[in-house]
Amino acid sequence: MGRAAGMDTASETQKKAPQDRLADWLAADMAAVNHLIRERMASRHAPRIPEVTAHLVEAGGKRLRPLLTLATARMLGYEGQDHIKLAATVEFIHTATLLHDDVVDESQRRRGRPTANLLWDNKSSVLVGDYLFSRSFQLMVETGNLRVLDILANASATIAEGEVLQLTAAQDLATDEGIYLQVVRGKTAALFSAATEVGAVIAGAPEPVVRALYDYGDALGIAFQIVDDILDYGGTAAVIGKNTGDDFRERKLTLPVIHAVASASSDERAFWVRVIEKGQQEPEDLEQALAILSRHGSLAAARDVALRWADQARRALRNLKANDLQEALSELADFVVERIS
Amino acid sequence: MGRAAGMDTASETQKKAPQDRLADWLAADMAAVNHLIRERMASRHAPRIPEVTAHLVEAGGKRLRPLLTLATARMLGYEGQDHIKLAATVEFIHTATLLHDDVVDESQRRRGRPTANLLWDNKSSVLVGDYLFSRSFQLMVETGNLRVLDILANASATIAEGEVLQLTAAQDLATDEGIYLQVVRGKTAALFSAATEVGAVIAGAPEPVVRALYDYGDALGIAFQIVDDILDYGGTAAVIGKNTGDDFRERKLTLPVIHAVASASSDERAFWVRVIEKGQQEPEDLEQALAILSRHGSLAAARDVALRWADQARRALRNLKANDLQEALSELADFVVERIS
Repeated sequence: MGRAAGMDTASETQKKAPQDRLADWLAADMAAVNHLIRERMASRHAPRIPEVTAHLVEAGGKRLRPLLTLATARMLGYEGQDHIKLAATVEFIHTATLLHDDVVDESQRRRGRPTANLLWDNKSSVLVGDYLFSRSFQLMVETGNLRVLDILANASATIAEGEVLQLTAAQDLATDEGIYLQVVRGKTAALFSAATEVGAVIAGAPEPVVRALYDYGDALGIAFQIVDDILDYGGTAAVIGKNTGDDFRERKLTLPVIHAVASASSDERAFWVRVIEKGQQEPEDLEQALAILSRHGSLAAARDVALRWADQARRALRNLKANDLQEALSELADFVVERIS
Repeated sequence: MGRAAGMDTASETQKKAPQDRLADWLAADMAAVNHLIRERMASRHAPRIPEVTAHLVEAGGKRLRPLLTLATARMLGYEGQDHIKLAATVEFIHTATLLHDDVVDESQRRRGRPTANLLWDNKSSVLVGDYLFSRSFQLMVETGNLRVLDILANASATIAEGEVLQLTAAQDLATDEGIYLQVVRGKTAALFSAATEVGAVIAGAPEPVVRALYDYGDALGIAFQIVDDILDYGGTAAVIGKNTGDDFRERKLTLPVIHAVASASSDERAFWVRVIEKGQQEPEDLEQALAILSRHGSLAAARDVALRWADQARRALRNLKANDLQEALSELADFVVERIS
């Protein structure tokens, strides 16, 4: 989704995308993570569990979150094996939240395939999500590191809280950038920052480094989610594609709409009240929404916010010892914003 | 539900029910647990969370599981405060599973009130359940006891696995007593045994005592769930009351039906195939089911199995130092079966 295009700049033609470089360097670690995931998603008693999990886990997700844990730990010189467990933990938490999200959003497609709630049912998605969450919990306990457990417990609470907040903030035009940021921290940044922070903790990094890695993950996650929300309206070109408009139909208040509502004329405000608050949507309303977003430069404005967070992510890594992994993580921050066409 | 009646035997008239004696002795501890629960179910950002949680937590549940943790720890001479956190942990896990269960079963009433999924929506129940599960996780991490974390992580996985197994075992007449026992361990006994085992671990009890407390909780939980399943068919008197027949309508294979199916005539088998496997139920079918259960003595047979587990629970405590708490826990095992009218 705009990723290959983002690579086509002159300065990057000789070089792979930072995420692909990370995946290459960490290929052996990632193979161990994938092996562990397959092993732990098994269930002696309930074959429905690996069926549902495999459908999602093996659909070719980017494995970005476990990659962050692996990269962080290795960048800081970690030589042990617990980062494998923590990377699998992070991916299990992510998969569990996807299963529950798809139930909550009544989604029908995910990663180009029908969702588990559509193929099986909501019950299976809820319960298999619970199972993966408890499996993640077992994995992290195996590291025996209480600080890591504390970080992941707090992240889990922030994730769940953010999801509930999104539920109540949706359909409410009073939702502002501050509430949006809390939602984004919950739905995305909390797991990114936990992924990078536990990598630093398990590597035994000194406190300022742990803090820097937390800041990096937090800012990267926020930039990543803002970009996702822009792409949901077709990117800054605002072109309607097959994945355009999910947030609009689900009446979610994301940054582009929050920007447009803040500077809306009275006619435009009436439009947003009808489609978002009242949920009375007609087929041509998405096009109308895109026209309003374009008129106010709302997608470009949201992109500027994403760029600022990407910049903050890069700056968090500035004082760390430079190496290939650190450089790739730093470039990854810009790269996530380059996804926008 | 048959509980007061169960107390009316000659030998017990002078004595309160064992659960009430436990509640009296542990009143100060339980007040601290309730305080902690109210404190931790709060959410700075999402007021929906305490609303949904309070609806369920303050509906007058029996708090049996936290009581088990408190009683176990105190019985073994524990003088610290971590048992409060663990008791709240156990209640949060229990509440989270109830929220998700009611979504999965599409239930409309719980503890005599409309369910949260009915009052709010499935989305809120799923996400608030996730929140409570992550809050439970934070609480147990605060104890800093890795063995306790291991026990509760394993219990969580067993619970989720049991729920998925129940989903696939329902509507399948091939479900036998072995599969039923796995489901029951997941849905009930795993949290009972974790509740008692962590009480023993936090009290620093020697290994054989920890094992005895695990065995006690496991057997008590199994007896408790079998009794619940008998009461769902109106108790051994098989009288249709307002709560009768939920399992029948949800086509769950519980012990009474498993017993009746095993000794069914060909006409009866055709009946079970129609109502359980095909789900073609008519209003008079519940009465017909009760007649078949009565003909084969299936409810009485299930009660015998429950009594054997209650006996096993009592025997698990036999070698422990006798004191008031130990005596009350021991009597509790018989008491849960006496609930059946």
